[in-house]
Amino acid sequence: MNSQLVTLLIPVTGIIALLYAFYRARWISRQDPGTETMVEIAAAISRGARAFLRREYRVLFFFVLVVAALLFFANWQERTMNGEVVNSPLLAVSFLAGALCSALAGFIGMMVATKANVRTTHAARTGLAPALNMAFSGGLVMGLSVVGLGILGLGLLFLAYDSLADWTPLRVVNVIASYSLGASSIALFARVGGGIYTKAADVGADLAGKVYEGIPEDDPRNPATIADNVGDNVGDVAGMGADLFESYVGSIIGTMVLGTGFLTAYEGLDLPAGTLAPVLLPLVLAGAGILVSVTGSFAVRTKEGGSPQKALNMGEFGASAIMVVVAFLVIRWMLPASWTATTPIVGEFTYTSMGVFWAVLIGLAAGVMIGLSTEYFTSTHTRPTLEIARQSITGPATNIISGLGVGMLSAGIPALILAMAIIGAHAFAGLYGVAIAAVGMLSVTGIQLAVDAYGPISDNAGGIAEMAKLPPEVRSRTDKLDAVGNTTAAIGKGFAIGSAALTALALFAAFMQQAGMETINVAAPHILAGLLIGAVLPYVFSAMAIAAVGRASSDMITEVGRQFNEIPGLREGTASAEYAKCVDISTAAAIREMILPGLLALAVPVVVGFINKDMLGGLLAGVTVSGVLFAIFQSNAGGAWDNAKKRIESGMDISGKTLAKGTEAHKAAVAGDTVGDPLKDTSGPSLNILIKLIAVVALVIAPLIA
Amino acid sequence: MNSQLVTLLIPVTGIIALLYAFYRARWISRQDPGTETMVEIAAAISRGARAFLRREYRVLFFFVLVVAALLFFANWQERTMNGEVVNSPLLAVSFLAGALCSALAGFIGMMVATKANVRTTHAARTGLAPALNMAFSGGLVMGLSVVGLGILGLGLLFLAYDSLADWTPLRVVNVIASYSLGASSIALFARVGGGIYTKAADVGADLAGKVYEGIPEDDPRNPATIADNVGDNVGDVAGMGADLFESYVGSIIGTMVLGTGFLTAYEGLDLPAGTLAPVLLPLVLAGAGILVSVTGSFAVRTKEGGSPQKALNMGEFGASAIMVVVAFLVIRWMLPASWTATTPIVGEFTYTSMGVFWAVLIGLAAGVMIGLSTEYFTSTHTRPTLEIARQSITGPATNIISGLGVGMLSAGIPALILAMAIIGAHAFAGLYGVAIAAVGMLSVTGIQLAVDAYGPISDNAGGIAEMAKLPPEVRSRTDKLDAVGNTTAAIGKGFAIGSAALTALALFAAFMQQAGMETINVAAPHILAGLLIGAVLPYVFSAMAIAAVGRASSDMITEVGRQFNEIPGLREGTASAEYAKCVDISTAAAIREMILPGLLALAVPVVVGFINKDMLGGLLAGVTVSGVLFAIFQSNAGGAWDNAKKRIESGMDISGKTLAKGTEAHKAAVAGDTVGDPLKDTSGPSLNILIKLIAVVALVIAPLIA
Repeated sequence: MNSQLVTLLIPVTGIIALLYAFYRARWISRQDPGTETMVEIAAAISRGARAFLRREYRVLFFFVLVVAALLFFANWQERTMNGEVVNSPLLAVSFLAGALCSALAGFIGMMVATKANVRTTHAARTGLAPALNMAFSGGLVMGLSVVGLGILGLGLLFLAYDSLADWTPLRVVNVIASYSLGASSIALFARVGGGIYTKAADVGADLAGKVYEGIPEDDPRNPATIADNVGDNVGDVAGMGADLFESYVGSIIGTMVLGTGFLTAYEGLDLPAGTLAPVLLPLVLAGAGILVSVTGSFAVRTKEGGSPQKALNMGEFGASAIMVVVAFLVIRWMLPASWTATTPIVGEFTYTSMGVFWAVLIGLAAGVMIGLSTEYFTSTHTRPTLEIARQSITGPATNIISGLGVGMLSAGIPALILAMAIIGAHAFAGLYGVAIAAVGMLSVTGIQLAVDAYGPISDNAGGIAEMAKLPPEVRSRTDKLDAVGNTTAAIGKGFAIGSAALTALALFAAFMQQAGMETINVAAPHILAGLLIGAVLPYVFSAMAIAAVGRASSDMITEVGRQFNEIPGLREGTASAEYAKCVDISTAAAIREMILPGLLALAVPVVVGFINKDMLGGLLAGVTVSGVLFAIFQSNAGGAWDNAKKRIESGMDISGKTLAKGTEAHKAAVAGDTVGDPLKDTSGPSLNILIKLIAVVALVIAPLIA
Repeated sequence: MNSQLVTLLIPVTGIIALLYAFYRARWISRQDPGTETMVEIAAAISRGARAFLRREYRVLFFFVLVVAALLFFANWQERTMNGEVVNSPLLAVSFLAGALCSALAGFIGMMVATKANVRTTHAARTGLAPALNMAFSGGLVMGLSVVGLGILGLGLLFLAYDSLADWTPLRVVNVIASYSLGASSIALFARVGGGIYTKAADVGADLAGKVYEGIPEDDPRNPATIADNVGDNVGDVAGMGADLFESYVGSIIGTMVLGTGFLTAYEGLDLPAGTLAPVLLPLVLAGAGILVSVTGSFAVRTKEGGSPQKALNMGEFGASAIMVVVAFLVIRWMLPASWTATTPIVGEFTYTSMGVFWAVLIGLAAGVMIGLSTEYFTSTHTRPTLEIARQSITGPATNIISGLGVGMLSAGIPALILAMAIIGAHAFAGLYGVAIAAVGMLSVTGIQLAVDAYGPISDNAGGIAEMAKLPPEVRSRTDKLDAVGNTTAAIGKGFAIGSAALTALALFAAFMQQAGMETINVAAPHILAGLLIGAVLPYVFSAMAIAAVGRASSDMITEVGRQFNEIPGLREGTASAEYAKCVDISTAAAIREMILPGLLALAVPVVVGFINKDMLGGLLAGVTVSGVLFAIFQSNAGGAWDNAKKRIESGMDISGKTLAKGTEAHKAAVAGDTVGDPLKDTSGPSLNILIKLIAVVALVIAPLIA
């Protein structure tokens, strides 16, 4: 097998993923969606989701065209690095491809999720096992669409550029890099816009009940209910998908760029996959990961009365275990046992194929450990949420103080894990090791994302069961799925943050190499200033996202009040609410509010980079470190508040008091949960995008500022 | 005038400050403390404050002895840097001197503050002007004690070590450096312990009213009231004093260390203040600043009906303006017009006396601007608090989300100011410029701290007026003083954070020079890991402080409940509460809870430093940048919640609703204020100490790890 065959096989794995996703999606479509009411509700949710995507993509269309044009003209003139041409107007094509693939993955995932939700409800009328299968199938389509389109796009671009005359591998990889920028642009709007959408609807629906007496939060009479359900799909399915799509391609591209540093050392070697092996390795690992994910998905099965948690764990951890073996074989096959290379940043270093394997393993292990740490701090059955529940007895203030403390403390362990992962991966394989660790962490994204997306689908299924007034055992089955979903969501969030951090570092290292930088000395004043400015960006970005949710949910509350006052019979349940109006409000707010933070994230690195490239280096270090910690703080505080509330709702005795739904302590816990909502679902996850986007912008402009 | 005369005059300025402080303190003591009830209340507060200090100092005594012994033995063996001996067992003496001076300043300041509070109340029975004068006098004693003892200790140590045979200036400065470590140790316990004390009492007193019906928060029947008043003195007077004492001496020492880098370039120059001028300059500027502060204090006068704000501004900004002129003259007199020096970090650089002056000016201006930014985000009459008040209508959750957003956003401008100050000061005078900018910012600490400490004294005065049931016009006068105090407190907090940041950077630069480091390259994995670990320390440290407040206030609530149940007649007001028990609880909690975070702050840099000095460099950069931002976030969120509540209490119309005390919106605002309390008074300010302490530990161990 030679290099060309390998490059041909890479897109094939993408096609396999898409074919299997198509097969599962068709199977989902053919299942019974249930009663007429259920179909109606599902149709409303689906309409809302499509309306959001349509308007989002319309805005994005112009945005993407403008950026593509900028890339096209900025790279019209050839630029060289050490005598090699490294750019091309085709950067615009890579960018468009990245944006298109990400958008398409989001569209497919969301469309299938809005079909799977109602069918999960229907399946839950029969039993737990078919419901689990349906919800997981919906998630799997999302997961496989993301990895499939991600690798297909990258693989085809590589094939195409590699076949151009006179294009060196460095140029190929460099021009591909803006594929990641395209993915990041979509992710920015999907995560930030989706996050604003979902929380505007959620907080709005919650609080409407507070402001206007007698409007229960989950009631079909509440006009914001459909928007709330749409939000689950828009934020948690499409947003998370775009986030991981970005990490996935970003980590691969970062590693490819760093892999070009080995080409001189590889010259003349006789390797089964050719001398481009270190550049192709991340693609091959990702492709193998797709096959492993598909295999792992077969393990997600449960019998009636079985544990859905066990089934999901089986799939996810099983896939990870297989991946370790596959990675070992792939790396030993592709790379020589050892080689020595001199790269500008690391200097002379002797690499080994085993070292690269250990780096991959470190990445996988770090991802799992960060996920477990997240679970500890946010799960319903651990100490931190118990403490928050206890502090709820003295009211919302102590509940919230306690949750903030939990969020802050929870940043400690992931920081240590990441620090050790960086040192370890680097010791084994230099900066290439750090980058490939990110690839390792993300290699089973296909099934990881399936498990993530399973959560909001189950959540939606429960909402539909309630709105369609199905018998209580249906709701209790979807609740069981949903409870598992909460844990997997927490792990998934930790995973998304951890992978964002490693991906940002991979891109950061690639940026340094492309910009011709060897050191980033924070003792230099402008670099320290860059560090400071970078570190404050997550604060400002989060503040903007939070303020946006505040404004949008106010609009939502006003609209709900208007409908209750103006629609006769709505309060009594004899007339139907105008759900579409609320969907409109959330949509319009999300689109409007994502513009400014989006421009901030794109403009700051460009401006700083053109002032001074070293200052941009400082900014990247600052935004990555600060962003990861601030994201963990917000996500985990939010998750802990949420589950402290759930814990109280399930009834508990503490300090001689009984806590349950309806008590003052529960009210306090609800306040905490509401505070946490925008933190864990809007501003926190947006920071994943922020740190990767800034890093990828830096990488793309690197040849211009070198 | 020659070098020796200059070094003799430096401690003299310290003595002047102390004499004047003694004069004002005696004047305060001689004023009438008012009615018998007032005297009793004041005595209880004073007793509580002394009890706390006694127990705190007892713990500190052993701690200080242990560290001194470690320093003594660790430096028994001589260590050389470029052939010069740089250490001595006398490091232990400097350390003890620093600890002693800081502790003494805290003791004096607090004792006088607990005399000034009741006399301010009494003066307020006559009019506003005498009350202002009394409160400000109390603050001034604190301010002058801090700067007086700070400079006296430093000056005397310099005189003593400089007179030792064979001691080079580098060795003198190096051995003095642990004076700053002594100050930091006290500051750690005073700020963290004091912060826990004050909020345990405050939150406990507030919430007791929530948990047990019918116990008003500010009522003499509430057993936690005295502890609450003690807390103002322990946290806001002594804690803030120790914090600024640390910044003050830290910035001076950092600049002195960097000044030794110029000695070769100065050899043979004929300068009026001798060739040690760059080492002595920070001391001389600080000494001159003392005289300017005393002068400025005469401007703080108001007539009946006049504005206390104007009077304080007159003193503070007047002093700053004079300081600019004085600094110009001092610098032009002491330094040559220009000189070229090569230092390891900056390399070859041509310095000018005007450049140094500009750096000082930048420091002063940055301090004022950060203060103004803080005021904007937290003041009762600006947009951010208006927005929080508006969000209170929909309950505590939206109030708190909004406040968190304000806190996050508020970090943006100070970060930019600091970034520009660093670049500017460095452009004018290299790293020496960055350090001397910190000295410039802190040069008028004498009056700045007077204005800061004036706030809690007025606050206490109001509390005493209420407890002693004085006529309402007395309370209204102290309220007027207190309202001004809130603004000055906000500015003071911003100032404390900004100066902590610059001081930490000064110490950081000094550390690099002493450890023989030229660059801190964050692209290196262990340095990046250090950056990450450093950046997460503020999160973990804050979490610990918050959890401590939570535990301590729970104890307080339980104790208040016990007293109400067990003391017959307390509820009816016929029996007296056992105030001392509550004081005990706060004291014991503060002492117990400050140990662990204290050890963390001391141990982490030592452990990391001995693993790898470059990793410690990364850790310093991380903790400084992350700590400053996290501190601003917490302080300003807390300040904004506080003033949003005050704004609602003063009555306002918004969105067609009237907000006032007793409305649901007010309850929501009270919850926000309670959440903010530990953030703005415990965890936030503790971070100032954390970043300086870690930097000074690094500086002190630098010769050992070089």
